[in-house]
Amino acid sequence: MTVHLVGAGPGDPDLLTLKAARLLGEADVVVHDRLVSEGVLDLIAPWVRRVDVGKDPQGRRASQRAINELLVELGHTHAVVVRLKGGDPFVFGRGGEEAEALVAAGIDVEVVPGISSAIAGPAVAGVPVTHRGRASGFTVITAHQDPHTTQELDWDAAARLGTTLVVLMGARRAAAIAARLVDAGMAAATPVAVVTDATRPDQVTTFTDLRGLRNLPVRSPSVLVIGAVAAGPVLDPDAHVAAREGLASLTLAPAP
Amino acid sequence: MTVHLVGAGPGDPDLLTLKAARLLGEADVVVHDRLVSEGVLDLIAPWVRRVDVGKDPQGRRASQRAINELLVELGHTHAVVVRLKGGDPFVFGRGGEEAEALVAAGIDVEVVPGISSAIAGPAVAGVPVTHRGRASGFTVITAHQDPHTTQELDWDAAARLGTTLVVLMGARRAAAIAARLVDAGMAAATPVAVVTDATRPDQVTTFTDLRGLRNLPVRSPSVLVIGAVAAGPVLDPDAHVAAREGLASLTLAPAP
Repeated sequence: MTVHLVGAGPGDPDLLTLKAARLLGEADVVVHDRLVSEGVLDLIAPWVRRVDVGKDPQGRRASQRAINELLVELGHTHAVVVRLKGGDPFVFGRGGEEAEALVAAGIDVEVVPGISSAIAGPAVAGVPVTHRGRASGFTVITAHQDPHTTQELDWDAAARLGTTLVVLMGARRAAAIAARLVDAGMAAATPVAVVTDATRPDQVTTFTDLRGLRNLPVRSPSVLVIGAVAAGPVLDPDAHVAAREGLASLTLAPAP
Repeated sequence: MTVHLVGAGPGDPDLLTLKAARLLGEADVVVHDRLVSEGVLDLIAPWVRRVDVGKDPQGRRASQRAINELLVELGHTHAVVVRLKGGDPFVFGRGGEEAEALVAAGIDVEVVPGISSAIAGPAVAGVPVTHRGRASGFTVITAHQDPHTTQELDWDAAARLGTTLVVLMGARRAAAIAARLVDAGMAAATPVAVVTDATRPDQVTTFTDLRGLRNLPVRSPSVLVIGAVAAGPVLDPDAHVAAREGLASLTLAPAP
C-alpha cells in the first residue's frame, strides 16, 4: 500500500540509484512513461505488470488526471507500486501532483530522487553547471511554453541573473529562447552547449553561442546550457569552441 | 589510469548510483572529503586506501591546489582512482577544476553524476522544486559569500525571476539572504522551507517565510527552499504552513 515515486535518471541504467534498482526488483506493478529509457525498463522482471502511460497502441497519451486516478487505484490494490519517471520525479515530472493525489486518497508515498538530466546531461558532456569564475549557480527551466508569451518566468531577470541557464525540453523552442535572451540584453556571443541524448549511447554535444543557436537544428531530447561554462568541455582541452574557430557550431561525439 | 569523479549523493547510501557503488568496489584508492556521509564511506572495502582531504588529524583542510596535485599523482600511479564528492561532482564541488587539472596532466577522467541535495533535499521533505502553478523552474546558488557584497549573482534579478530559489550551504547566511531578497522586493511572506540533514536519519524540515528566516537558528548542513513550493509538504496535508497558523515557524521530523 505504498506508491514509490522513483526517478529513473537520464537514460544510462548505471545511473539508477541503488534504491530505485531494488524497488524495480520488488515491485508488483511499474507505471512508467516515455522518458524512461529502454535500458532501465529492461531491469524490470518480465513477470512484473507494466503500465506505459506515455502512449497507448493508438499513440494517445494518458492525461495527468487519468494517471493520478490509476496510481490511486493501484495503490489500493497492490503492495508495492513503482511510479517510474525519467530523471527526478520532482523536476518537471509532475510528481508533486501525483503525490498530492495519492496522499489525499490515504495512500503512503515515498519519493526516491533520481539523477536529473539538468545536471547530469551537461556533466557527462564535460560541462559543469557551476565552475569557479564562470558560474556561481544555475537555473533550470523548461521550454514547453513560448518564451515570448509565458508569464511564469521573467526573461529579463533570467538574462541578468549571472547563473548558468539550463533549458530542458528545449529542442523545438531553442531559436525562440536564444532570441528572447538576446532581446533581454544577453550577449549574442554567450556560449551555448546543446547536449542531445545525454548519457545514452548516441550522445552528441554541439558547442555554439546564442547567435548560432538561432539557426541550429536541435533534436529532441536535448539539454541546452547557456553561459560561460558552455565555452568548451573541461574534459577535452583540444576541443576548441565554435566561436574561437569562427564556426557557427562544433559537434562532438564521445570517444567510442 | 582513470580518475573517476563520482557523486556520493546527499547522504543516504541507498541514493548512490549503481555505477558509483560498483566503482567503490573496484577502486584502488578513494579520495573523499567531509561532505561524504559515513554510510557511504562504510561501503568502501577495508583494504582500499582512503584519503580524507576534508581534514587532517590537526583539523586542517587540504587546499584545492593540493587536492588537484594529489589526484594527478594518484592518477599516474593507480589504475582505478575514485574521487568521491558529496552530492554531484559538478554542483559546487569544484569537480570542474579537478577535471581540468587531470586532463592537463594527460590522465583520463570519467564523470559519474550523483544525486544533488539541491533537488533531493527538498524532495525527501515533500517539497518539489517545480510544481504546476507554483514554480516553472528553479535556481540553485550557494551562500558562501555575503549576499550584500558578492558581485556574482544579481539578487534583484533573483527576487524577480519567478523560479524556486534553492540555497546550498546557506545555514550561516540565512538571515542575510532573507534580508537581501526582501530588500530586492521579494514579499516578506514568501514561503521558506529549511531542510536540515536531508536524507539522513536526523532529517528535519522547518517551514517559515522570509520574515521568519531572519530570526531562525539554522544548523549546518541545510538546504533553503524559497518560493511558493515551500508553503507546505505535498506528502502531508495535515502539516499546515507556519504562516497559516500564525507561527514564526513549524518544524517537522519524518515519521520514524
